[in-house]
Parts: sequence; C-alpha cells; structure tokens
Amino acid sequence: MTIIYQYRVATTSLGGFLKLLVAWRGSVYKLLFKETLIFCLLYAALSLTYRLALSATQRTQMERLVIHCNSYTNFIPISFVLGFYVTVVVGRWWQQFQNVPWPDRTLFVLCTYLNGQEERSRMMRRGVARYMLFGLLLIMRSVSLAVMKRFPTIDTIVEAGFITKEEAETYEQTQCRYLKFWVPLMWANNVIARARREGFIETEFGLRMVLEQLADYRDKCSLCFVYDWITIPLVYTQVVTLAVYSFFAACVLGRQFLDPAKGYPDYQYDSYVPVFTLLQFTFYMGWLKVAEQMINPFGEDDDDYDINWLLDRHTAVAFALVDQCCGVHPPLVRDHFWD
Amino acid sequence: MTIIYQYRVATTSLGGFLKLLVAWRGSVYKLLFKETLIFCLLYAALSLTYRLALSATQRTQMERLVIHCNSYTNFIPISFVLGFYVTVVVGRWWQQFQNVPWPDRTLFVLCTYLNGQEERSRMMRRGVARYMLFGLLLIMRSVSLAVMKRFPTIDTIVEAGFITKEEAETYEQTQCRYLKFWVPLMWANNVIARARREGFIETEFGLRMVLEQLADYRDKCSLCFVYDWITIPLVYTQVVTLAVYSFFAACVLGRQFLDPAKGYPDYQYDSYVPVFTLLQFTFYMGWLKVAEQMINPFGEDDDDYDINWLLDRHTAVAFALVDQCCGVHPPLVRDHFWD
Amino acid sequence: MTIIYQYRVATTSLGGFLKLLVAWRGSVYKLLFKETLIFCLLYAALSLTYRLALSATQRTQMERLVIHCNSYTNFIPISFVLGFYVTVVVGRWWQQFQNVPWPDRTLFVLCTYLNGQEERSRMMRRGVARYMLFGLLLIMRSVSLAVMKRFPTIDTIVEAGFITKEEAETYEQTQCRYLKFWVPLMWANNVIARARREGFIETEFGLRMVLEQLADYRDKCSLCFVYDWITIPLVYTQVVTLAVYSFFAACVLGRQFLDPAKGYPDYQYDSYVPVFTLLQFTFYMGWLKVAEQMINPFGEDDDDYDINWLLDRHTAVAFALVDQCCGVHPPLVRDHFWD
Amino acid sequence: MTIIYQYRVATTSLGGFLKLLVAWRGSVYKLLFKETLIFCLLYAALSLTYRLALSATQRTQMERLVIHCNSYTNFIPISFVLGFYVTVVVGRWWQQFQNVPWPDRTLFVLCTYLNGQEERSRMMRRGVARYMLFGLLLIMRSVSLAVMKRFPTIDTIVEAGFITKEEAETYEQTQCRYLKFWVPLMWANNVIARARREGFIETEFGLRMVLEQLADYRDKCSLCFVYDWITIPLVYTQVVTLAVYSFFAACVLGRQFLDPAKGYPDYQYDSYVPVFTLLQFTFYMGWLKVAEQMINPFGEDDDDYDINWLLDRHTAVAFALVDQCCGVHPPLVRDHFWD
Amino acid sequence: MTIIYQYRVATTSLGGFLKLLVAWRGSVYKLLFKETLIFCLLYAALSLTYRLALSATQRTQMERLVIHCNSYTNFIPISFVLGFYVTVVVGRWWQQFQNVPWPDRTLFVLCTYLNGQEERSRMMRRGVARYMLFGLLLIMRSVSLAVMKRFPTIDTIVEAGFITKEEAETYEQTQCRYLKFWVPLMWANNVIARARREGFIETEFGLRMVLEQLADYRDKCSLCFVYDWITIPLVYTQVVTLAVYSFFAACVLGRQFLDPAKGYPDYQYDSYVPVFTLLQFTFYMGWLKVAEQMINPFGEDDDDYDINWLLDRHTAVAFALVDQCCGVHPPLVRDHFWD
Repeated sequence: MTIIYQYRVATTSLGGFLKLLVAWRGSVYKLLFKETLIFCLLYAALSLTYRLALSATQRTQMERLVIHCNSYTNFIPISFVLGFYVTVVVGRWWQQFQNVPWPDRTLFVLCTYLNGQEERSRMMRRGVARYMLFGLLLIMRSVSLAVMKRFPTIDTIVEAGFITKEEAETYEQTQCRYLKFWVPLMWANNVIARARREGFIETEFGLRMVLEQLADYRDKCSLCFVYDWITIPLVYTQVVTLAVYSFFAACVLGRQFLDPAKGYPDYQYDSYVPVFTLLQFTFYMGWLKVAEQMINPFGEDDDDYDINWLLDRHTAVAFALVDQCCGVHPPLVRDHFWD
Repeated sequence: MTIIYQYRVATTSLGGFLKLLVAWRGSVYKLLFKETLIFCLLYAALSLTYRLALSATQRTQMERLVIHCNSYTNFIPISFVLGFYVTVVVGRWWQQFQNVPWPDRTLFVLCTYLNGQEERSRMMRRGVARYMLFGLLLIMRSVSLAVMKRFPTIDTIVEAGFITKEEAETYEQTQCRYLKFWVPLMWANNVIARARREGFIETEFGLRMVLEQLADYRDKCSLCFVYDWITIPLVYTQVVTLAVYSFFAACVLGRQFLDPAKGYPDYQYDSYVPVFTLLQFTFYMGWLKVAEQMINPFGEDDDDYDINWLLDRHTAVAFALVDQCCGVHPPLVRDHFWD
Repeated sequence: MTIIYQYRVATTSLGGFLKLLVAWRGSVYKLLFKETLIFCLLYAALSLTYRLALSATQRTQMERLVIHCNSYTNFIPISFVLGFYVTVVVGRWWQQFQNVPWPDRTLFVLCTYLNGQEERSRMMRRGVARYMLFGLLLIMRSVSLAVMKRFPTIDTIVEAGFITKEEAETYEQTQCRYLKFWVPLMWANNVIARARREGFIETEFGLRMVLEQLADYRDKCSLCFVYDWITIPLVYTQVVTLAVYSFFAACVLGRQFLDPAKGYPDYQYDSYVPVFTLLQFTFYMGWLKVAEQMINPFGEDDDDYDINWLLDRHTAVAFALVDQCCGVHPPLVRDHFWD
Repeated sequence: MTIIYQYRVATTSLGGFLKLLVAWRGSVYKLLFKETLIFCLLYAALSLTYRLALSATQRTQMERLVIHCNSYTNFIPISFVLGFYVTVVVGRWWQQFQNVPWPDRTLFVLCTYLNGQEERSRMMRRGVARYMLFGLLLIMRSVSLAVMKRFPTIDTIVEAGFITKEEAETYEQTQCRYLKFWVPLMWANNVIARARREGFIETEFGLRMVLEQLADYRDKCSLCFVYDWITIPLVYTQVVTLAVYSFFAACVLGRQFLDPAKGYPDYQYDSYVPVFTLLQFTFYMGWLKVAEQMINPFGEDDDDYDINWLLDRHTAVAFALVDQCCGVHPPLVRDHFWD
Repeated sequence: MTIIYQYRVATTSLGGFLKLLVAWRGSVYKLLFKETLIFCLLYAALSLTYRLALSATQRTQMERLVIHCNSYTNFIPISFVLGFYVTVVVGRWWQQFQNVPWPDRTLFVLCTYLNGQEERSRMMRRGVARYMLFGLLLIMRSVSLAVMKRFPTIDTIVEAGFITKEEAETYEQTQCRYLKFWVPLMWANNVIARARREGFIETEFGLRMVLEQLADYRDKCSLCFVYDWITIPLVYTQVVTLAVYSFFAACVLGRQFLDPAKGYPDYQYDSYVPVFTLLQFTFYMGWLKVAEQMINPFGEDDDDYDINWLLDRHTAVAFALVDQCCGVHPPLVRDHFWD
C-alpha cells in the first residue's frame, strides 16, 4: 500500500518534514535496521579487538591500516552516482505507474453508445468490462508478485468471478506461446463489433469511439509488459550497489577511533560510538533503498503500488459504471443561479 | 494564493533578483524564522556554556568535541541530495498543476453544438456545467485541505448552489465504496446523450466531439486523484530530511567559536555571531522548505495553488460561457483593413 | 528581440564560441557592468582602508577577519544550486515559448472549408482571424509589459484596427470579473457555427475540423495564462539569490590581499587587482542573470521574446492567408521530372 | 536477451541489491574482467620494477613521479562527466525502445473492420500482417547486427516465409536508392484500400481507422531509422572515453605504494594490492560500460534488446490475431455477479 | 554528414569505446588541434622564459604568480557548468532533429485517397509532393547554411526542378514581408480541396485525413523556424565560454613547473611537458566543442545533420511514393504459413 503522507506536510510549518521522521511503516528505519545492526556489530567487533586484544605492534599496524582505509573513502563519489541513478529510477517508476491501465474511460464511452437496459445490452456491457479486467489481471499477474499470489491459477480467477469456466477454456485453447493478455481484449473488441452489427450500438461513430478507447487500454496493458521486460541494465545497478557497499566496507575499518594519545591528526577525539558514520550510513544506504524500492514498484514493499487494491477498485467502479449508472441522470431542473 | 513576482523582474536590471529579497509573503524568512530562532537559541546556549560555565578541563574536552563535529559536517553532501530531490519534487509539482482540469474547452464545444436558447437547451447546458464543476469539487475536496474546509459536507455544496438537493441524494444513493467523483461526470455524459436523442444536438459529429472533450476532462480529474495517491516515496523524503537536520545538529556544536588563544588551526577568529553558519542555515533549510512547500501544492501555504480561487473562476466562466456567450457574436462587418 | 547568434557558430572553428564574447547586445557585460562596478568600488574601498588607514593592531584584526571570511566562502556550493535552479528555469522558459499560440493552422483549415470569394465568406474569414488575434492580444497584454505598453487600453486596439468600436463594446458588456480573453474566441466559434448553418461550410467534417483547431488555439492561450499565474515558487528564487549575493558579500572581504610579509599561507602574493575573484563574479553573477532573464521571457530584455514582432507577423500572415491565398494555387502542369 | 532481475529485488530486504552482485550474465564482472586483468598486470609490472629492479636514485625519481601523477588524478572529475553523459545515453536508449513498432494495434482494428472468414478476407488480413512484419524486418536488418545475421539476404526472408518469391521480386523492382522499408507498408495500404473498394471493409470509418493505425506503425519504423542515423555526437563519446582511460593510465603509476620508510605523507602504508584503486576501477569503468552497452541497444550484448525474440513474438501474435482470434468471442452469458 | 559509429561498439568488448579514439572525422582531435597548438605555444614560451631568460628575483616573483594562479584554478567549477549547459544543448539538439518534417506520412495517405492513374490525378499528387518539398526547402534555406549555398536563389530551385517558372512567379507575387514558407503549403491545401471538389478524392473522410497530415507537416516546418528563432540565450553561452577560456588562461601560467630545488610543496617534480594539463585541456575544451557543434545542428560540421542528403532522400521517396508505388501491391496469394 502506498504511504500517503503529504497531508501531514500540506502546509509548511515549524519542523515541517521533521514530523515525517517518526513514521515507521515504509520508513527508512524499517528498511535499514537490519543492515545497520550488522554494520554496528562489525564495527564494534573491530573496535573491541583494537582496544582490548591487540599487542602494541599490532595496534600500530592496525592504526596505519585504518588511516589508509579512511583516506580512501573519499575515492568513490557515491553521492553523484546515487543522485544520477536514483533520478533514472524515479523517472521510470513514475512512468510505470502512469501506464497502469484504467478501464474508466472506455466504459464511459461504452455506456453512452451501448445504453440499452435489456438483458442482451447489459450482458454485452458487463462482458466487455469483465474481459477488460481479465486482460489487466493477466498482465498484472506477470508483473506483480502480489497479484500472482492472489491469483496463482486461471481457476482462481474463475472462482473470483471475473470469467466463467467456459471463458477460461476458450482462453486456454488459444494457441500462442507468448503472454496472451490480448486474447480477452480481442473478445471485448468482437463483442463491441457484434453490438454494432446487431444494432445495439446505433452509429459507426459510436463503434469507432469505443474501439479507440479500447485500443488505448490495450496499449497501456502492452506498455506494462514492456516496462517489465526492459529494466535498467543490470550492470548499472551493480555498479551503484558495489560503490555503496564497498564504501561502507571501507568505513567499518577506516572510521575506527584511534587512541588520541598517539597524536594522529584527525584522530584527536574518541567518542566510542561513530555517530556521524552511522548518520552517513543511514543516509547513503537509505538513498540506495529508495532505488531498491522503486525499481520494482509492483512488489510488496510498504510503499509499492497496491495493485490488488487497484484491481478491486477497478472491478467495483467498472460494474457500477456499466450497470448502476448507465443512462442515469437526475431530472433536468432550473438550478440555483437561474436568472 | 500563488505569489506572482515575475513582473518585478520582467527586465533584468541592477540588483535584479535582489529586490525579491524584501518580500515577506511566501518568503524564505517567513517560512524559516521559527527554525532559525531555535537554532540560534541552541547555539547561544552552548556558546555561553563554553565561555562562562565550563572548567578548563571541560573546555578542552568540549573543544575536541567541537573540532570532531566540525570535521564531520562535510561528510554529508546535502547540496547534491537537495538538488536531485528538489528537481524531482519540482517536476511533480508542475505536472500536478498542468493536470488540474479546466472546463472551458468542453463547454466551448458544447455551446457550439447544443446552442438552442429555449429553456430545455439551457437547462441541459447548465446541467452539464454544474455536473462538471461538482465532479471537480469532489476531487479537489479529496486532495486539498482548503477546499475541504470550504465544503466539508455535500450539504455545503448544495447550499453553494452547485447541485440541488435531489441531485445530492441521487449522488449519495450510488453504491460504490471508492471515491465517486465520476458519478456526476457520468450524469453529464448521459445528459449529452439525451440531448442528441432529443435532437438538441443535431449531428453525431457534435455528440462525439462533446463526449471526447468531456472524457478528457474526466481523465484529468482522474489524474489529480492518481497524483494524490502516489507521492514521492516516504523513504526518499525521510533520507533528505534526516540529512539536513543532522547536518545542522552537528553545526550547532561544530561551528562554535573556540578560544583563539588556544591556537587551534581554523579557530583563530572569534566573531561571537556565526554569520556564515546562519547563512548556510537559511540556504539549505530554505531549499528544503522549497520541497516542503511543493510536495503538496494544494495546501494552504502562501505559495500553494489557490484552488478555491480557481473553483470560483471556473464557476463564473462556466456560467458565462453556457448562457451569456452561447451563440453570440458581433455583427459581421467590413473591418479596418478591408481593401 | 531575441538575439540570433547561432549562425556565427554554425560550424566549429578555431576559437568558436570565443567570437561570441565580443557581442554587446544581450551580453553578460551589458547585464553585469553595474553590479561589477559596485563590487569593485566596495573592494577597492576596503583594500585602501587596509593598506593606508589602519593601525598595526587594526590590520592584524582585519587580517583575521579576512581569513575567516575566505575560509567560509566555500561553505555555500552555489555552482550546484545555480545549476539545478537554472535547469528548472530553462525548462519552463522553453515550454512557455512553445505554448505561444500561432493562428496559422486554424486559418489554413478555415480557408479550405470556408473558401467562398463573395463578401460574406470573406467577412467571416476575416472576422475569425481578427477575433483570434484579439484574443491573443488580450492574453499577451496580461503577460507582457511590452504589449501592454503598446496597447494600454481597448481603445488602442480598436485604433490599431483589430476590432471595431461595436465589437469593443460587445466585449466590454460581457460580464465576468476574470480575464475575458475567451470572449472573442467564443465569437469566432459562433461565426464558424453560423457559416455552417448558412451553408458556407459545406460539411460537418469541415465544421468539426475548424472547431478543433480553434479549440487547440484557445488551449494555448489558456496555457499562456497558466504559465503566467504559476511561477517558480518565490522561496526557491530567494534562496538562490541569497546564496549568490551573500557569497560575494563574503568575497569583498575574504578575497582581500594581505601583506605577504606577514607570511599567512595562501596570502603570499599581492596582485592588487583580484582578477580571479572578478572572473568568478562575472561567472556566477552571469549565471544568475541567465535565470533572471529567462524567468519572465515576455519582458523587455535584449534577449526576451519579441512578442510585438510576433503579433505583427501573425497579423500580416493571418490576413494574407484568409484573403490573398485563399483558394489560390498555380495551374496544374507536368513538372520537370515528368517521365 | 534482456536480463530480468527485478523479481529478485521485488521487495526490499536485508542485503537487497547485494544479491544482484553474484550474477554473471550481463554483469559488470563479465564486461570488465579483461580490462581489469590488463590493469592489474601493468600495475604489478610497475610495482615489481619499483620494488626489485630500481637503484636508490631511480627509486627516488620514480617516487616523485608517482606523487606527481597521484596529485593529478583528481584533475579530471570523471564522476560528473560520466553522470551527465550516461543520463543522455540512458534517455536515448529508453526512447529507442519505446519506438520499436508493435503491429498489435493495427491488427486489432483490422480484424474488427475486415472480419470476413472467407478466403479472400483472410488473404487480405494475412497479407497486411506479413507486409507489416516484412517492413519491420527491413528496418531491423538495417539497425541490428543480430537481425542482419539471421536474415542476411532477401532470399532468407522468403525462405522464412514472410514473403513469397513474387513479392520479393516486386520489392526489388521498386526503384529508389534509399532504404525501402516503406514499400511493403505501401502495399499494406493498398491492400486495405482495395478491401474497402471491394466491400470487405464496409465503412469509410473502418478504412480510415485502419489506415491511421498503419500510418502510426510506419512512423515508428521511420523513427527507428532516424534514431539509428543520428547518434550522440562522436566527440562527446570520445571526450568521456578519453577522460576515463587517461584517469586510469595516471592511476597505474600514481597509485603505486611507496616505501613507508621514506616517510612521504599519504604513503605510510603498503598493502601491496591496491584494493581501493581496483574498486574505483570497477566502479568508473563499469559506469562507462553502462554507456557502451546502451549506446547501441540492438547489438548482441547480454543486456541488449533481443530483437529476434521480438520478431518471433510479433510473427506469432500477428498470425494468431488475424486468423485464430478474428471475430471470436465466448458466448454472452450472465456473469457471476449478475444480480 | 552525421558520423555513424554505433556499429563499431554494437557489442561491448575489450577496449570498447577505446576503438573510437582512433577516428579522425568528427573527432575531438580534429576539432581541437588548433586550440591545443596555441595553448602549447603559449605554455612553452612562458616555460622557456622562466627557465632561461629571467633573473633570480624575477624567477621568484614569477613563482609566486604561478602559485597564485594555480591555487585559483579551482575557483571555477567548469565541470558543473559544462555538465548543465551541455545537457540543455543536447536536449534542444535532439528535439530540433525530431522536428525536421518528413513528407512520407502525408503522401501515404494522399496516395490512398487520391489514387487515380490518369494524368490529372498524377499531376495533383506530384503537385502536392512538389509544393511540400518546396515549402521544406524554403524553411531549410533559412536555417541551414549548407542548403542556402546549394539553393541561393529561387531560380536555382526552379532549375533543380522543384517548381516551374510560373510557380516561382506566383510565389514571388504573394505579398508578405515575413518568411513565406507557408505559401506553397497553402497551394498544396488548395490542390487537395480541388481534388475533392472534382471528385478525385471520393469522400470527405479522405479529404479530412489528407488535410490533417498536411497540417502536421506544416506545423513541423513552423517549429523548425521557431527553433531557429529562439536559441539558448546568448548570456548563458557567454558565461560558459568565459569560464572555460579564463580557466585555461590561468592554467597557462599556473601549471608551469617550478624549480624543484626551491622546495615549493606540490612543485617537487619537473616533467617539462604538462601531460595532465593537456589532458584536462582536451577534456574540457572538447566538452565545450560538443556544445559548439550541437548548438547549430544545421551547419557544416562533420557531425551536423546532412540536410542536403535528407532533401535528396525526401525528393526521391516522394516521387517514388506518388507515382511508382501508388495503388500497387503484389497479387493476393496464400502465404507460406497458410494452414
């Protein structure tokens, strides 16, 4: 479920975004606490070794190693890399959501041109609605783990009432070894064409307009598939990951506090707990987690798109549109401002 | 209310943007003065403690801590992070405004094709206009606090004259547990379809064109909802906030002036007031406030979109279009340049 | 008037962009020389004070202050801030120009479908052209100072021949307290609808196509208004301005040359004139001026869009299209390559 | 074949992207191991020379050279350059994929309007489908090495069954010395126009809609050609390449470990293996490889678009659409939710 | 002529982009060798002066100046400025190419609806094609030096066969003091309208569709003009140029090698040839050249769009489309996969 927090910051105020830091669901803490724990344990282990276990010579050797590691942590400008990489990921993430198909527009137009109240009209409208939802489901199962879990087989889709047993069979008889999300959309097309032939849709204009909307819907389904097929190249993600993790590997050693008595410059102060390194860890690792969360927006993170919610919404609205609201409007009256 | 300042800088001149620094409404000072005050108080408290309260040993310890903190303030490259983050926020903010629906285009086309002056024609045109405004209102109530405050219940919308009591009831009887902004738009659709059936719209061309415009309007309403549903992931906002606030937490300590007599390098000068740190505070915190203000453009900040103003504008223009201007044009005459 | 310089650098050559540095109109020198002068005067005043007026103790104090200021000039990473800010401004600037409406397309289509040569046809075509230009004028007066200066009142528009006195009256009688640029466009709509009713436009196809183009034109007018209403938030502009000006305030002091004899590191050389600081000034201040010039592209800077020129062009082309060229083409002949 | 890894990171988890580091296909290791090996050999050669072969004087000279090189490695800010360059490359890469034409939409519409089941209808539909695929093939051969290898001559296309021998001859007789991908698309156009004339497509609406979709398909083919014709200017790619390679040329020398006994600052520690330099190498070189892989997405890298797979998919789906699914839908029944 | 190099890097391989460094046409070396030579000469002159001509005192003074200059070279962050500026230039460059009009789509549709083989039909089709090419030529002459050189007068266009002498006269008689590229497009419009009136185009659908495509073509011509009229503001280009050139002016002095014997820190090594400074020069100057080359893509650089080639291609394809291919398709047969 997407986390909606913009109302808490609708108006800038004292502290402002600070309020957001106390959230837990979808927060940076929830995403990071395991990594942080591991980092702390490693750091503490090394710190205790240095302070308690080593001989004087070993300590000197370790001190040199620490200074060496530390001076090299600024070799890798992870802030840039993360900045550029996350910008690409964010752009893709948002485009991906914009391309999730909404059946509303098609059904609006369908209701206007195929507006009979008798059974056959209703069956056609409901059929088109169901086929559109079924097509969407097929795509969503292929891109979203959450949807796949909910509808692992065609049978579960039949049970949920989206299609009948016969329709499921017709679907499965279509021979094509590629993803067949377009099959039910073709049915919808054919039902609409039949509605025109049988006179339920009265004009060519009507037919054309409904078909166009349906084709746009189909294109969006297709784009969902494309976005899923083509990801940001693996090597880009690897390079960024490598940069961040190797940076913190160097930090575990390089940010150890050394004995101030030894008089190394920049090591005059021993605060035992590396507060600033931990902040930096939260910060950079959190930025990487932003990318991790957004690279597959159809997963089950706290902040991923809730496709199952969207499917329920689409189902409810689709049936409300084609049945309950079709052809209905309040009586025409003189309104309040009528002169 | 959006702050319009571009006329003050229409032409580059001496000082140029400098003039803008004296504004108060929507200014960085207004947004920041509380935070700045708190920062100053904390800084002063620490400063006085250091100068007056501490023993010599304690002072030395504090000096070490200050140097430690200071050296760590450049660990966190907040300028990058803010740069990338604000760019994302600005992009979203502008797209969001571009998707606020304007009823003008639909009503222009409606007036051309449904241009009768008798009562039923007028009722239809006014009905469509009112339903469009009502649909917009429903969406805007769900995304904007200011609109919600103005129209907290459906009754207040009835009182304001957008819909009649009967229409409100019809609306509430529609059963769907999701946001029902599309219900009045469906009515508008149905009224237009009826106008065609009853012959008020004379051609299929006319019907189609009006429906298309209405569908575009509906899509924009839908997009408003989507933009509100999907925000920039919480974790990104948290990471940026954490970076900025922890930076200034480190500054409160790390930017203290130390006794020049102690001869620490970079601490040769004691100006009591940390002018540059305060500038930096205004600067970075102000940048974060830019994001804070833009992440929810429908709030009540000085510089947020004034959706209530826009609603009033839309209402006035909508009724002027469908009644006052419908079918009217000055007599055709030979113009000034006629040969 | 926009400055066209791309032909001088059409082909890369020795020096290339260097040639552009000798321009004056719209140049960085013209925009900056006043600011530079002020900066130099302040710098010189401080420099002379330091060299001539101060006692030895005062000089030492000032030296400390200078070093302090200098070390703090790299606190504010203005290059980033300017980079991100200017990118946003440039994006908006270009979109704004792309949305300036051009009447050509509408008039092309109008001429094709309403192509009679008798007086009434011509009056209709010319009427539509004039109303479109008048609508554009109304918008442009509200966004551009230059246009407002040229047409301060409706009367001046009447005088210029865009509309007749009667049309001006009809316009002013329309009651709506918001900007009424859409009124003449509604007239144009109604004239076209009348042309269809009276048979001058022969088909519904024709009517529809002309109306669509006109609606697109209207939308662009509307967008001009929107871009003018919603600017980059004041606080962003303030933050950037503050950063740049406070940077140079620090430089006036911090970049003073100190007596090399005192042996301060980095102050071994006294060149009297701070050449590099001045270059930096030109550079950063010039970058800010880029933003200043582009934030309101309809002003009167050397490099702003010349909207008055565009209005003249539109007027000339509009009348040429609807009268001179309407229905005309050279006789059909066998061409040069005819086999 | 594109590498699909987003499911492995569908949900953020401990380690997250870390899992991706163990992949080999399409990984940074596979792309880089040769370069890394060469770098290591050069480094080792120099290191051994320094440690074993040089005289004391020579060593001192080399030490100076090393320090000189090292101080200059931060002259070239490759992280920026790579960041900006890769952003441009990524943008182009993604646009390029979005413009790969998909025949689905055209064929959907074709099936709706040209839906007879008799032989001539079927031949027309199949003909259009084949001509579209042939046009796509012609474009793809010109941009993708993999497709060219699969279909080196027109004869191989005939053999694969896309066109007949006679069609191949007709194609080759068309005289035009530029790429003729539009010839089969013109045939498709003409077949559709004939279908209208012979009454297989019953309405002008149908004809128009099919033609529009086909024209969009043709435009996308055209864009593929344009993207292939206009690449990122060579000089930009050269500048970036030069920066990265010269950086590592300097590193081979400048990152040598010097004898700690000599007491050079920053050279107190000798770890023999330059771990951090190698990480930096992987990191920057890997970033460059991202660009290298994406600049021609139709090549044969592990992560390039698999155009041959797409051609097979298009062929299978095209024939399934125009034959198997044309006009078919399950019987209309009352659905599960029927009240 | 655009330089096509993507096939040489179609598949990532050892060295990869390295191969591209040996190109000469359109390369960074070709663009830069003159500037590099001048830089080297200046550097050498100063170096020789320092080493041979100066007295001991003068040398010391010069050393101070060198150190002063060098420390100031990092005042100007040219990598950012270039990064942001080049990104803007690249964006504009690509949009500009995308808006070069292609007549293909219009002519495809024209051939479908105006498909007679008798002389008058052919003359109409060829006329429309010629008028479209003539309009494109007029625009291209105004934006591209190369096209202007090829067609300096209307007479040369007549000679090349695009228009007849009579058409040239008609064109020149049209009175309008602004660029008249739209005149031949208006002719094309009128010829098409006449074709409809005379029955060569049989339906209103056909007329409409052809007109729409032609209007899109006209809009793209118009955009070419707009892109040429509005360039990136001069002041932005000046600021960037100033930054780069002043940086290297400082380098000529600041990067001199000083006598190591003097013991200045960072000047311990004298390599006579400033290898790294030259690399930096190639790098930054090359980046600026990228911008220089792309700011006017219609010039005569090695890597500019070859508009003359495109005009030839358009001419050949246009005539092939309207004559050779119009109405032609291979006989309909059962294909290879026919069941």
